[in-house]
Amino acid sequence: METIRVELGERSYDIVLGTGVLKKIGNSLKSFGLSPKIAIVSNPTVFSLHGKLVVNAVRKAGFDAITISIPDGEEYKNLLWLQHIYNELLMHKLDRSSALIALGGGVIGDITGFAASTYMRGISYIQVPTTLLAQVDSSIGGKTGVNHELGKNMIGTFWQPRLVWIDVETLRTLPEREWVAGLAEIIKYGVIYDEDLFRMLEEKKDKILSLDRNVLTHIIKRSCEIKADVVSKDERESGVRSILNFGHTIGHAIETATDYKRYLHGEAVALGMCLEAELSQKLKFIDKKAVLRIRKLADSFGLPSVLPADIDIDHILSSMQLDKKAVAGALKFILPERIGRVRIHKGITEKVIKRLLKSSIK
Amino acid sequence: METIRVELGERSYDIVLGTGVLKKIGNSLKSFGLSPKIAIVSNPTVFSLHGKLVVNAVRKAGFDAITISIPDGEEYKNLLWLQHIYNELLMHKLDRSSALIALGGGVIGDITGFAASTYMRGISYIQVPTTLLAQVDSSIGGKTGVNHELGKNMIGTFWQPRLVWIDVETLRTLPEREWVAGLAEIIKYGVIYDEDLFRMLEEKKDKILSLDRNVLTHIIKRSCEIKADVVSKDERESGVRSILNFGHTIGHAIETATDYKRYLHGEAVALGMCLEAELSQKLKFIDKKAVLRIRKLADSFGLPSVLPADIDIDHILSSMQLDKKAVAGALKFILPERIGRVRIHKGITEKVIKRLLKSSIK
Repeated sequence: METIRVELGERSYDIVLGTGVLKKIGNSLKSFGLSPKIAIVSNPTVFSLHGKLVVNAVRKAGFDAITISIPDGEEYKNLLWLQHIYNELLMHKLDRSSALIALGGGVIGDITGFAASTYMRGISYIQVPTTLLAQVDSSIGGKTGVNHELGKNMIGTFWQPRLVWIDVETLRTLPEREWVAGLAEIIKYGVIYDEDLFRMLEEKKDKILSLDRNVLTHIIKRSCEIKADVVSKDERESGVRSILNFGHTIGHAIETATDYKRYLHGEAVALGMCLEAELSQKLKFIDKKAVLRIRKLADSFGLPSVLPADIDIDHILSSMQLDKKAVAGALKFILPERIGRVRIHKGITEKVIKRLLKSSIK
Repeated sequence: METIRVELGERSYDIVLGTGVLKKIGNSLKSFGLSPKIAIVSNPTVFSLHGKLVVNAVRKAGFDAITISIPDGEEYKNLLWLQHIYNELLMHKLDRSSALIALGGGVIGDITGFAASTYMRGISYIQVPTTLLAQVDSSIGGKTGVNHELGKNMIGTFWQPRLVWIDVETLRTLPEREWVAGLAEIIKYGVIYDEDLFRMLEEKKDKILSLDRNVLTHIIKRSCEIKADVVSKDERESGVRSILNFGHTIGHAIETATDYKRYLHGEAVALGMCLEAELSQKLKFIDKKAVLRIRKLADSFGLPSVLPADIDIDHILSSMQLDKKAVAGALKFILPERIGRVRIHKGITEKVIKRLLKSSIK
């Protein structure tokens, strides 16, 4: 087992990473001063695979585990299902010292974290991410939230977990498309922070795709370290943390414009990274060779790297204006200067983006 | 104008207090680095009295003011009306740097604060309390929330305002019953913290009831100072802040048991204080004379001090168990030792409370 510390003063916590560690989670909960009742929030798919193991581990550590089920899918990350969680917590009389365990991917982690942050003005929660995307990104850093009809993650909080518990083995139970999408976020860490990580992805592509334990553990661990480092420097995204949004400004808009049906989040981010890298090249911040390396790496994993012909560009543009990262209508972009370094760039006009999107269509 | 500082590190803010200061709020907003659009959340009753003044003040300072209306009453402090606020904020495209102004009593302050704490992971808000209860208590300290069918304020956050702006003149527009209920919280500050304040309430009763500007301003200011002091020492109520709950453990349960219809919050707190003082006397923490002083002061303002004969005691007891301040079933009480000092006491059994309630019925 490996441990990475997220340094945030009194809100600091550990990310614990290993193979087959799900069944060992019980004892780690004992030091938090929790009430006896713990609620495990999950979806039916994940719960049927890993639920029993976690429930048993929690019970063996002396806790009373109740389970709360949310249907599987981004469309259930909303205020209605949040209310379902509140109802269950109140019916089972969880109190201020109780904890929630989020067992699942980003949807489960986000809605559970939001419930924890708002139940009785904030209780503890533990992230047990079971998708690659959640393991390297959404489970770390305390961003919680639910979606609103008018935009993704519009309702949410910053609320740090007490612990992130990652079992790399859970990735073996994922559909290939889903875990490959998670690689987009790892590529992102390479581009914004660490050329060595990027190079490893290029060189060990085959081992990664065959789920080699050592390589996988290494790239997940490195991703967690980078995320922990950035979050420690800027918990509430008032500065450097926004570099984690590389690929996400356009990526989110593509997800919204395609109603979250066409692309998985990671796929949209891959597309967003390719387009934002191209934007950077147009502004002469990065050379063409580096942009091609990014596109080639995305391609090699089967991630999308060009916009399809039938995409609604105006819809992407209007979605971008409502992004919560937009302030008073001005768009902020994270643009790479080379593999391993980005800059924050403000004030790009809609016209420039429109031209970029049009020229990028397949 | 008087200014009291709530010291909370980077979350510190001012309470500004004065007579006829509503129209001066505009300039104070300029230093917060806000986006041009500000949303004023209010109810129709308060808005018809003070809305125009505030809207004009905000506009004169160069902001674009939109207004959001919530029906008047505790029963609308719920997730449904919260969603209405979210909808309006998104439709009007308020962004991360926008602010909300809560113009009204505790209901408006609580739901607006909660909306601010969860919109785009937290935006600024300003409290403009127009009831006595909100001016001396709920607008200060960052407790936000909405009610749930299964309990009051069960869903909420700690989220500090950027500013609290108190115009004592607004009290003149309140129904007498409502502002008298607010005196209960001022009595509370006297009991838990400041015998001089308590004595002033005893001695200046007539001036207070005739809304004498000077006395009123003095007791409100002193209350704000005490609240600011306690909150500064313990923002998230992990210790000393719980002394503010004197009268509230039984008070909340009475409100729940009577479906929030029979008593105003302050009235229930007055009742709760009398009962909890009696409990303290039963446990020999305080002498009878002091308990009688508390009851007599409540009586003199026309606040309830004894349980009516038709009250459902079992309902009060079961409500107490679900109070979010209960941890793993154990009840915590704030018990006075003399006027001006309280202790935190844990582990009182239901049986003792039941006997207390029975013996207190009129």
